[in-house]
Amino acid sequence: MAQVSIIGGGSWGIALAVLLRKNGHEITVWSALEREIAMLREFREHKMLPGVKLPEEIVFTTDDREAVEGKDLLVMAVASSYTRETAHRLSSLVAPRQKILNVAKGIEEHTVMTLSEIIEQEIPQADVAVMSGPSHAEEVGRGIPTTIVVGAGTKATAEYIRSLFMNEVFRVYITPDILGMELGGALKNVVALAAGIADGLGYGDNTKAALITRGITEIARLGTAMGGKFETFCGLTGIGDLIVTCASMHSRNRRAGILIGQGKTCEEAMEEVRMVVEGVYSAKAAMELARKYNVQMPIIEQVNAVLFEGRSAAQAVKELMLRDKKLEVSDLPWPEENR
Amino acid sequence: MAQVSIIGGGSWGIALAVLLRKNGHEITVWSALEREIAMLREFREHKMLPGVKLPEEIVFTTDDREAVEGKDLLVMAVASSYTRETAHRLSSLVAPRQKILNVAKGIEEHTVMTLSEIIEQEIPQADVAVMSGPSHAEEVGRGIPTTIVVGAGTKATAEYIRSLFMNEVFRVYITPDILGMELGGALKNVVALAAGIADGLGYGDNTKAALITRGITEIARLGTAMGGKFETFCGLTGIGDLIVTCASMHSRNRRAGILIGQGKTCEEAMEEVRMVVEGVYSAKAAMELARKYNVQMPIIEQVNAVLFEGRSAAQAVKELMLRDKKLEVSDLPWPEENR
Repeated sequence: MAQVSIIGGGSWGIALAVLLRKNGHEITVWSALEREIAMLREFREHKMLPGVKLPEEIVFTTDDREAVEGKDLLVMAVASSYTRETAHRLSSLVAPRQKILNVAKGIEEHTVMTLSEIIEQEIPQADVAVMSGPSHAEEVGRGIPTTIVVGAGTKATAEYIRSLFMNEVFRVYITPDILGMELGGALKNVVALAAGIADGLGYGDNTKAALITRGITEIARLGTAMGGKFETFCGLTGIGDLIVTCASMHSRNRRAGILIGQGKTCEEAMEEVRMVVEGVYSAKAAMELARKYNVQMPIIEQVNAVLFEGRSAAQAVKELMLRDKKLEVSDLPWPEENR
Repeated sequence: MAQVSIIGGGSWGIALAVLLRKNGHEITVWSALEREIAMLREFREHKMLPGVKLPEEIVFTTDDREAVEGKDLLVMAVASSYTRETAHRLSSLVAPRQKILNVAKGIEEHTVMTLSEIIEQEIPQADVAVMSGPSHAEEVGRGIPTTIVVGAGTKATAEYIRSLFMNEVFRVYITPDILGMELGGALKNVVALAAGIADGLGYGDNTKAALITRGITEIARLGTAMGGKFETFCGLTGIGDLIVTCASMHSRNRRAGILIGQGKTCEEAMEEVRMVVEGVYSAKAAMELARKYNVQMPIIEQVNAVLFEGRSAAQAVKELMLRDKKLEVSDLPWPEENR
């Protein structure tokens, strides 16, 4: 039995707390927000996970020391915009080589850093790992069969974390490719926006499948230039997570895209969705990275034009369909013309 | 302007006939079935493509010679079970190096041959190419933006075929990897069955995304062992086509899977769907190939056990979730344990 703290009281952290408790571990949930902790303690339910009862044994706290000291694993489950601040706050309490598992996704706007890079910068003594994959919190909370990937700096750490989480409805794969996992997880939201825009325009399954597939090709092109592995982008944390996002009305990115496809501006769409639309920020970061690594990203480019330059969504699709004729895979060799 | 014949009067062939006519080409549609040709001639509409008018200029015929002689391209659009018979019938009329584009998908049961291999065997003098990708005929008929891939033996043939089809709602990529395209297109139906079974069991988006992503990983493992390229399985003709299939109630494979997940036997499901369920045959062929090439295909294996050995669908999912713990990508190197 391990001692695990969940850092953050959002729906994903709580779904993982319930899963780990079922697996027999001792769980503490920490949040900086007194009110959030008070609600969870009182109602033993998270408002985004209706019907999922939080076992009595789970401890809720706002005390930093209680959350960090002596724990076998800290699960970092705060929204990406709070990752740096939270890591900085807890840093001095973290023991050398204490394990931290980040389960959020995103790229920091100005530094263009991934979340694990931010945590390693703020808590250099920690052993930082990441977890990602096609996993709506609502479904994990209800015990729906789910697969996920843990990436870590050493195989021993990855195997240890897997041993805590894996059970008959939660299958855990492991990988050394942390960077590929994080880039795929962050950039997929831009493609989800594009898929939503196509839905909003009234296009069908053909168009959406094209955007998803060519979208992951673009992400892989950038991601491999940055050092991620191609196979990772074609796996659970890349295309798998993108499929789940594009299939779901839970996705704010997709919902914002639909509104934009129907003719709303980016501001109007964000106002209507009433939550942070991660893909809008990641779209900018992706363009910045594409320029830096000199990689072609036509879908990301058109999404940026629609979001920030007032290009119409229909015009953007037309430009995607008619741009230069291409090979599907640019470096496959063609046989000699001798047949 | 090119002279093109569509061989076969099904919905996919007819949707492509309408597209090619819009692009300005002279189109003949051939079928072996007098009644089918008479209906198309009279109603100028295909029953699976309601509202899509067939232009007056399209010629309908049952005459073999009229269909084949002097044509720049023959588009082979018959159901996979008729490919060999149709190719054999027309063979003597085909000129040396006459271009044939196969647009159907499947693997022949006992020979385990792909459709282009069958056509090349029956018409050795032809220049055989293939076209595949995420493309419901219903949507192509309505002019919904669609992407597709043409695979050919030479780049010149691929570029020529692309030039006939490409327009502002139909984007054509080209590739030399015919084998990868055909294997992905045929084997994806087995994964669509598995995804349908998960839907029928009442599982959610997490489970389905896992089956789709791990399913294409299996197909790629077999396909690369047979000589296909990994990138092709991660592209439009692999994962792209699989996404479209698993999203759609048009798919017989998915519908049959749902019924099986709800507790029906394979026979009962096929009877209720009332059409050939390609994935049931491909499931057998895939197991045969997996054995021949000594490749692990756990999802395909469980689908076979459910279809032919009476294993319950829920038990199959449980076995998939709990089998040996795995790396996501088996050959990514892990750093030394020195951090």
